[in-house]
Amino acid sequence: MSHSYLDMINDYRDLYRLKLEEKNRLCGEIRQMIIGVATENGGHLASSLGAVELVVALLSVFDPMKDKIVFDVGHQAYAYKILTGRKDRFHTLRQWGGISGFPKREESPYDHFDTGHAGTSISAAIGYAKARDLLHQSHNVIAVVGDASISNGMSLEALNQIEELKTKVIIVLNDNKMSINFPIGGLAKHLSHLSTNPSYRKMKDALRSACKNLPLGGSLIEESLKKLKYQIKTALQPINMFEALGINYWGPFNGHNLEELEEVFKLAKAFDESVLIHVITKKGKGYAPAEENPTKYHGVSPRRPRPDAEIVSWSKACAECVEKIAEKDNRVVCLTAAMEEGCGLSRFKKRFPDRFFDVGIAEEHMLTYAAGLAAGGMRPVTFIYSTFLQRAGDQLYHDIAMQKLPVVISLDRSGLVGEDGETHQGLLDIPWFKSVPGLIIASPRDVADMEFMFSNLIKNCDMPAIVRYPKGDAPKRLARDVDAPCAPWLKAEVLRHGREVLLIGHGGVISMLIESCNKIADIYNIDPTLVDLRFLKPLDLETLNKLFVDHSLVIMAEESYAIGGIGEQLLGFAQRVNKHIRWEHMAVPDLYVPHGAKDEQLRYVGICCDEVVKKVSEYLETAPR
Amino acid sequence: MSHSYLDMINDYRDLYRLKLEEKNRLCGEIRQMIIGVATENGGHLASSLGAVELVVALLSVFDPMKDKIVFDVGHQAYAYKILTGRKDRFHTLRQWGGISGFPKREESPYDHFDTGHAGTSISAAIGYAKARDLLHQSHNVIAVVGDASISNGMSLEALNQIEELKTKVIIVLNDNKMSINFPIGGLAKHLSHLSTNPSYRKMKDALRSACKNLPLGGSLIEESLKKLKYQIKTALQPINMFEALGINYWGPFNGHNLEELEEVFKLAKAFDESVLIHVITKKGKGYAPAEENPTKYHGVSPRRPRPDAEIVSWSKACAECVEKIAEKDNRVVCLTAAMEEGCGLSRFKKRFPDRFFDVGIAEEHMLTYAAGLAAGGMRPVTFIYSTFLQRAGDQLYHDIAMQKLPVVISLDRSGLVGEDGETHQGLLDIPWFKSVPGLIIASPRDVADMEFMFSNLIKNCDMPAIVRYPKGDAPKRLARDVDAPCAPWLKAEVLRHGREVLLIGHGGVISMLIESCNKIADIYNIDPTLVDLRFLKPLDLETLNKLFVDHSLVIMAEESYAIGGIGEQLLGFAQRVNKHIRWEHMAVPDLYVPHGAKDEQLRYVGICCDEVVKKVSEYLETAPR
Repeated sequence: MSHSYLDMINDYRDLYRLKLEEKNRLCGEIRQMIIGVATENGGHLASSLGAVELVVALLSVFDPMKDKIVFDVGHQAYAYKILTGRKDRFHTLRQWGGISGFPKREESPYDHFDTGHAGTSISAAIGYAKARDLLHQSHNVIAVVGDASISNGMSLEALNQIEELKTKVIIVLNDNKMSINFPIGGLAKHLSHLSTNPSYRKMKDALRSACKNLPLGGSLIEESLKKLKYQIKTALQPINMFEALGINYWGPFNGHNLEELEEVFKLAKAFDESVLIHVITKKGKGYAPAEENPTKYHGVSPRRPRPDAEIVSWSKACAECVEKIAEKDNRVVCLTAAMEEGCGLSRFKKRFPDRFFDVGIAEEHMLTYAAGLAAGGMRPVTFIYSTFLQRAGDQLYHDIAMQKLPVVISLDRSGLVGEDGETHQGLLDIPWFKSVPGLIIASPRDVADMEFMFSNLIKNCDMPAIVRYPKGDAPKRLARDVDAPCAPWLKAEVLRHGREVLLIGHGGVISMLIESCNKIADIYNIDPTLVDLRFLKPLDLETLNKLFVDHSLVIMAEESYAIGGIGEQLLGFAQRVNKHIRWEHMAVPDLYVPHGAKDEQLRYVGICCDEVVKKVSEYLETAPR
Repeated sequence: MSHSYLDMINDYRDLYRLKLEEKNRLCGEIRQMIIGVATENGGHLASSLGAVELVVALLSVFDPMKDKIVFDVGHQAYAYKILTGRKDRFHTLRQWGGISGFPKREESPYDHFDTGHAGTSISAAIGYAKARDLLHQSHNVIAVVGDASISNGMSLEALNQIEELKTKVIIVLNDNKMSINFPIGGLAKHLSHLSTNPSYRKMKDALRSACKNLPLGGSLIEESLKKLKYQIKTALQPINMFEALGINYWGPFNGHNLEELEEVFKLAKAFDESVLIHVITKKGKGYAPAEENPTKYHGVSPRRPRPDAEIVSWSKACAECVEKIAEKDNRVVCLTAAMEEGCGLSRFKKRFPDRFFDVGIAEEHMLTYAAGLAAGGMRPVTFIYSTFLQRAGDQLYHDIAMQKLPVVISLDRSGLVGEDGETHQGLLDIPWFKSVPGLIIASPRDVADMEFMFSNLIKNCDMPAIVRYPKGDAPKRLARDVDAPCAPWLKAEVLRHGREVLLIGHGGVISMLIESCNKIADIYNIDPTLVDLRFLKPLDLETLNKLFVDHSLVIMAEESYAIGGIGEQLLGFAQRVNKHIRWEHMAVPDLYVPHGAKDEQLRYVGICCDEVVKKVSEYLETAPR
């Protein structure tokens, strides 16, 4: 490259003086920057690569200082970040203190709405649009939404609302035919039908020529548009799904053709009604490995030392466990909401294609579908991330737990999740779901216990349940003798019998607590007791109450919000048994934990070995000996 | 009436021997029974009246002993209850110990899925259908869903999934053009377009004649159906929205014509693919007041003594308060999810039509739409029942609170709700939302404080907030001097300064606690202290910690689940200040509270004056004096 356009420009305003060819070369450079940073730091590579021209065209036509651009999910927004003042900080993407992987209003005045979860952009955009109308302002509002997000129920609710509101919003449907894995459902088929239907292609040509001939500005434009509007209305018979909902549909357009995109965006800007612009892009565009395997490159992990071959992720271990159970029990079916790869289910899908359901980004439907399957005699296991289960809390309560239906929720990425940050933390599942009557909540510390829990839940226990596990690597065996059986069903397990100091935890924090025990013994010559709760609902009060009697400091650690955590609940029982207990709850304080490495996050919220030792030290200083 | 058909039959099996004319007369008798009971006990009168022929036709064609019929919401199911073994108990509808107003699996083997919240039936039905396929069974699965429920995001997610699953499910769309108030959105318009489109009417005629000529049984039927299928496919060009999603659409049919309904149900039963049957009914059919004003008769209250004209409901008081604020602040807009009447918003809508939005049964969309409005400079107030906010917990967390957007949620029907029962209790809002960082949660005890809270939230406090209030009557002033200002912002209020016993509460329980104070003073000669928390987040620890120091019994009462309630959280603070406090948390135990009068429910869960007195008595017996 003789010289770099990316070096030459400050931000999107410099796009105005670039020629088409120069912009195309700039797109290539932006891609290289994205590939470089995302393969190093981890990130949503493939989606952002697919949307580079889309972003450049948007920023060539709209002004994000006044126009509001809302990216759905935000996976597509890396080029947008680079071109709106964050080029020089882009190498800090997803790192502690660096820029976020998602749009964030606090990060930039150009980020108009925080996103992370799917399906929010159309609702937010029509909110922005209606506020503009009511406040007599005149800027543009654009939602950029992928084909996977648009089939989420919330998007569909918002689409249903548009005509009635009589406001103008521009929806750019970035259709990469992918969802996170592959297209799901009738809407995806309908989109692919629209993509190839000649009547729409004809429309596109009409639009293009109209656009070219438009004297942009002046009153001629209005007349041309009026005619065009009529043409659009008539050309679009037979109606498509969007037209059925009263929304103008234009497309499909080539999402990598800058000229075409800029033309249609200009037209949409001048048009006086809401319009959905259907744009076809290629996920992973410009990076061969991602183009070939866009699912693998949907989200890439930060570059880290090559892991031990022996180490397995929690996701994979759980999926394999359920697969083993499914071999012998053909009532077992697996469900996921667009997380086949993330939840390690590809092999299950291959082995049991009839018993695997990826419902797309439709968490609400997934849980009630699972309830129906269970009512019909199956044993569904639904794989979902903790953060996304927040989308289906009511279905868990109202459709599964209230009817005592035996659905097992395999809850991935619970607790702190690292680089995805605020929007993706799994800190609410305990506060929210511990209050759901009749639900079992299990939190295994290792693969051995996880296997025992799944197996018992599916084989012996006809109850609704959650098995909660963190992101990352799963210890195969932790504080457990080889071949020793797991502790009894619904019982806590005392991993270490000591005195005075009682450490309580569950799941991912147990290894930190084991380390803490050793340090406390070394430094203070106190041998603490360590108990793994294993089950968060129901709580094993029999075991705990005995321990509360003869310990004077309790440190309860968990990767959950402190408010509503299990620690809050346990204190009530402890206090009845032993009024003199000093109670320390080590959990996430009442704030949103930013993105960065998980280690940084744990230190930030104070869930770490050093803090445990510090609390023991404080106790020893003040406690009567 | 010479003799009663309803008296003559035991259940739906007796329908088989009735002639068409006799069934029609039976429908009239069922309507009379529904009107009699629902106007006495309260209930969802208008919807159930509209669906009598629909239910009779379903039960004439399908056998609910093996076929699975899933009613969405369940408002339409009264005739179904009467005809499936619950005729003699129907007079106990919605009463404590009586039959539920909604389908309940525990109540009857004919109720195949518990409902109450909208939009669940299609998901549940396809779950049942897929389970049937996997278990090689052969029964029919039918979802009966209203035009309001089908536009809920969850229904749309499920519709999107049907084609892909290659299973057969029959969806009966009961279109009464009503939603709870009136039709919302593009889909409603589309349905009305389909209702009048001649090509569909032609289809209907084709179906009817085909149906009549079908020799039901034998192999001829298959050939006829094959032909018919082709006819259907071709007749339905241009495609409609359902066809766009790959679902066969038949209709519209007259939902009060038994003969037509039975014909089409028989055909759907024999058809080998999923089909959506569009049926037009009249809400309130057969009861003149309800036909004329179906919104008013959507849900009717139990017959009770005529209330004092001075008494106002919480819903009405809140709506009027926001209306007053909106007069002076044109940034204020009101949103509701199909609860205009229920939340008392009709007058607001009339006065400020441009600033009122009923989004239909789309709680998720509503909250993020409100977030967009707030981001765009408005001050949205969203009116929603506590139980339905469970549907949009993630939107509250992810789209409103995380971005610190000034959306106020006016949370109606929080706490126990009486006759609607399990599915509609508002017991989760505290456990779920107290853990959302940055949210303010207010719980006023009377209208005066409610007005102060709304006014401050909208005028002075740019924060996301919930104002939580119960179902029923609002005291205008409670433990408050006329013209005395409200307690300071975010502060708890000590209503009575006493000693030894500290009663803590908020919202609806305060009047019960005042009564308890008087009883305790009378019986034990102890003057308790009474504090109204007013704000559940943030908690006023300054005031509380002072009180914890010199009281030895705390009774904290709240209409919330105990697990996750504020009482659980407060104990941690109390214990740090005073280890000798005896702590009694009077809240809802870990179970689902059944339907019945609210008084019965309060006694059942032990939130009442007698329990407070009992706890004081127990304390006095054991405490050192």
